[in-house]
Amino acid sequence: MSLVVVGSVAYDGVETPHGRVDRMLGGAATYISLSASFFTRTRIVAVVGDDFAAEDTELLAGRGIDLEGLQRVPGKTFFWAGRYSEDMNDRVTLTTDLNVFADFQPQLPESYRTAPYLLLGNIQPALQRSVREQMNGVRLAGGDTMNFWIRDFREELLETIAGWDFLLINDGEAKMLSGHTNLRKAANAILEMGPHTLVIKRGEYGAMLFRRDAFFVVPGYLLEDVFDPTGAGDCFAGGFIGYLAEQGFDLAAGHISRGDLSRAVIYGSVMGSFCCERFGVERFRTLTRSEIDSRFEEFRKFTSF
Amino acid sequence: MSLVVVGSVAYDGVETPHGRVDRMLGGAATYISLSASFFTRTRIVAVVGDDFAAEDTELLAGRGIDLEGLQRVPGKTFFWAGRYSEDMNDRVTLTTDLNVFADFQPQLPESYRTAPYLLLGNIQPALQRSVREQMNGVRLAGGDTMNFWIRDFREELLETIAGWDFLLINDGEAKMLSGHTNLRKAANAILEMGPHTLVIKRGEYGAMLFRRDAFFVVPGYLLEDVFDPTGAGDCFAGGFIGYLAEQGFDLAAGHISRGDLSRAVIYGSVMGSFCCERFGVERFRTLTRSEIDSRFEEFRKFTSF
Repeated sequence: MSLVVVGSVAYDGVETPHGRVDRMLGGAATYISLSASFFTRTRIVAVVGDDFAAEDTELLAGRGIDLEGLQRVPGKTFFWAGRYSEDMNDRVTLTTDLNVFADFQPQLPESYRTAPYLLLGNIQPALQRSVREQMNGVRLAGGDTMNFWIRDFREELLETIAGWDFLLINDGEAKMLSGHTNLRKAANAILEMGPHTLVIKRGEYGAMLFRRDAFFVVPGYLLEDVFDPTGAGDCFAGGFIGYLAEQGFDLAAGHISRGDLSRAVIYGSVMGSFCCERFGVERFRTLTRSEIDSRFEEFRKFTSF
Repeated sequence: MSLVVVGSVAYDGVETPHGRVDRMLGGAATYISLSASFFTRTRIVAVVGDDFAAEDTELLAGRGIDLEGLQRVPGKTFFWAGRYSEDMNDRVTLTTDLNVFADFQPQLPESYRTAPYLLLGNIQPALQRSVREQMNGVRLAGGDTMNFWIRDFREELLETIAGWDFLLINDGEAKMLSGHTNLRKAANAILEMGPHTLVIKRGEYGAMLFRRDAFFVVPGYLLEDVFDPTGAGDCFAGGFIGYLAEQGFDLAAGHISRGDLSRAVIYGSVMGSFCCERFGVERFRTLTRSEIDSRFEEFRKFTSF
């Protein structure tokens, strides 16, 4: 069933120990949508400038992604550049040119408003809320945020996530949001803020799922070469919500089990791992659902005892 | 079946965000032996000074640990003190007084020499080798090392571990020993050095098991409060080898499966997690085998999907 994804569509410049690309397709909404498109019909809400290349539109459309909500306005597309450390666990931002993204006001096409699934990528919390409010009958809504909003837009963020079913953040963000350094305490505090499901992403160390009555942990997939971790967290989000949308799960109605959510976390982990195998979105040009399902089974194999 | 454990028996001073203890029983051989004693008959080889307290001897003896190989010599027992960071992931050493440990020459009592299992705690590689050479008919031998030996005693260390069945080290040590930052590549390189089984400990993030034909990963146990992580890696080692000794497994004869080793990794993780629940060795005064087996089942529950 169809999924609405909101966030940035951007151009990225990325430097890792494996190489450097000066300009390639990126952005949270791009990664989330590409990842989710292997599971469900995905509809993107974002803004690009008049420099956005036809081949990038074609890549998204070629994956069946609905681009009716992709606004094109005069000016340049959001540009971000960063450089990763030798072990890929740290990165520095070299450039952030918001460009047309600075005035982004998400407007949902009529056809998007009744989609049952919603993934709010990392943008200003008030904009995330406005998208949520434009929709009717959402079964499952949630999203991501980041340190900047947690620190400087705390009240706005709390008001926004109060209406979410799930929150997907990394461990540092969970600690910052909750004020607890212990992740179990952090999770308990966050589950009091509204979302009944919390997924904490830990990069190469995997992910954890917390609900009041359930707990699940998966270690990370061990790649022989991590080419470029950019977008891996967004691809995790896309796999997580994509799988739930594909299955038609409905958290609010209580139709979802710990097992369902755990498998969604595994699909998230699978998609994050594929993302790192090539620069930018390259891996998604050739990836198949059968490769995805094989890696899901690999997770089962290397974690069972 | 019986297990010989070699390493330090010490007094520790530890400061964590939860409090401070100026002097308490510690040392790698202490933690390994206490942990292993829940699974198998354990025989300790170490040295202490004439300040070693009767109550500490009693704690070890009370767990059924054979102390015939615990040498008592004039002088003071090895003393170490350290302070942990707020998140417990880093620590600084404040004091290292080797004292009687500086001249430690491990001598195995006759009754130890035919024990089938051997765990070599982190001491100088040449001493680890001398212990190995004093034994006959060992089924399974392995141990731990640290950055200091990897960097400054590399040839001696390589000669030593060439004769081991398994090596248990942390991720930073695996990278340093192999020269690879990627853990899969690091593991492949280390498996060429002699040990057919490598366990990489990742602290709160869990552990990984590598063999040429097998791979297993387990996430860490999420404690609500980590009081003191001192000794957790050694308790992991004690649970790992203790379980294998209890089951009577014999790697050399090929009687061991990936499943057996995976369960040994889980028991290692269980024992490491209990260690962190109290200061020093306190948790082992009251711990029961039934608590251990319950936590083993908890691992199964929170990792299955």
